[in-house]
Amino acid sequence: MGIVYGKNPVKEAILSNQTINKIYTQGKTKELYDIIKLAKDRKIVVVECDKVKLDKMCDGKNSQGIVASITDYEYFTIDDILNEAKSRNESPFVVILDKIEDPHNLGAIIRTCECMGVHGIIIQKRNACQVTDTVQKVSAGACSFVKIARVTNITESIKYLKENGLWIYGLDMNGENTIYDTKFEGAIGIVVGNEGSGISRLVKENCDFMVNIPMTGKINSLNASVSTAISIYEVVRQKNLNNR
Amino acid sequence: MGIVYGKNPVKEAILSNQTINKIYTQGKTKELYDIIKLAKDRKIVVVECDKVKLDKMCDGKNSQGIVASITDYEYFTIDDILNEAKSRNESPFVVILDKIEDPHNLGAIIRTCECMGVHGIIIQKRNACQVTDTVQKVSAGACSFVKIARVTNITESIKYLKENGLWIYGLDMNGENTIYDTKFEGAIGIVVGNEGSGISRLVKENCDFMVNIPMTGKINSLNASVSTAISIYEVVRQKNLNNR
Repeated sequence: MGIVYGKNPVKEAILSNQTINKIYTQGKTKELYDIIKLAKDRKIVVVECDKVKLDKMCDGKNSQGIVASITDYEYFTIDDILNEAKSRNESPFVVILDKIEDPHNLGAIIRTCECMGVHGIIIQKRNACQVTDTVQKVSAGACSFVKIARVTNITESIKYLKENGLWIYGLDMNGENTIYDTKFEGAIGIVVGNEGSGISRLVKENCDFMVNIPMTGKINSLNASVSTAISIYEVVRQKNLNNR
Repeated sequence: MGIVYGKNPVKEAILSNQTINKIYTQGKTKELYDIIKLAKDRKIVVVECDKVKLDKMCDGKNSQGIVASITDYEYFTIDDILNEAKSRNESPFVVILDKIEDPHNLGAIIRTCECMGVHGIIIQKRNACQVTDTVQKVSAGACSFVKIARVTNITESIKYLKENGLWIYGLDMNGENTIYDTKFEGAIGIVVGNEGSGISRLVKENCDFMVNIPMTGKINSLNASVSTAISIYEVVRQKNLNNR
């Protein structure tokens, strides 16, 4: 059972037809009122409660007076993702996560993928962060809109995507070309590696290209969700330019 | 008082001339020895202690046998930031945060700014997250390398930057042009607004341009650190293309 809190996230959760068990509210400001009306229109139970209870439900974070309890995430398949692209009449654009461990990174990546129109995300069943409550919270409701597939073997999934015409790009500090020197065309899969160790050897060997994000500082290591976002943005930017 | 732990972070802290009170070490491996020597050369007090104490200092995280206690972050001035640009012989590139509240966002933004060569960050003294211990940790050491100025009034700072030749771009969902349709040239300031309410009215009025990041999803709201990263990347991408 998961929790979503804050005015916008709860509103998104309602609009996304996510299975909401109950909504808890405190007070009746104009903004809350609109959300409560929306929930009632959809026959969702709305319960009034006090600040202490709301604070407890969202670990002391600021609930903005509203919390929704939602059911667990149901995963999709890779074919669901490819069909999503087909139904939008677009070339598939998939993000493959090779063992992202931090729930904040996973949640942020899901949110970015949704905003940028990525058709789906592939995560691994073992040694990787799953779509937990925290991830759903951090994703700000995006988990309800973007298809996430969970697989046993990332390498096999990459092979399957390649059979389906996708070009696979691995993100790596030592990639041969920068992302803006790379021509992203057609069906694309972007592989992002683990926060500490990057993309694993076997997965790397199965990528068509290894690409890097140019950096000029002393630290030379971006947060995983930031580098994913920058790469997705670059792909979308190039696609939009091509469509003019 | 903050804490930095682990071989690389402590070494970075020493090299960055951060004010270190003391360094605590356990054992004398080759690698530790090099850092201890570096510290002693800079007249930093080095104290030997046991694992229990080190573990306690870094909340049970793996200290790798070395912990440094550092003083609170010392803020720079806007002139320091402009001088940083001058000393690198580059046009100023500044990120202005209009009330970012979340320490993870602030830390992630500082990290991205450092990696991307931004000359400095301006934050507000009130109603905004300051450079706390958490922020320093999340920034992965970047706080030691990127100059952060703290000001009472963001609007006044923007006026001052404009007097110094910077063009100020405000990031907003409803900005007139997309960032990739915008020509980023010369001295640039990017304004990023609060996680919930965006850029405040008065600050908006003082921006030269309002720009947006094109989005195609249903949520249409990126995390603040992600949208900052994408904008910085786009500015750097255009600058690099122009320099060819």
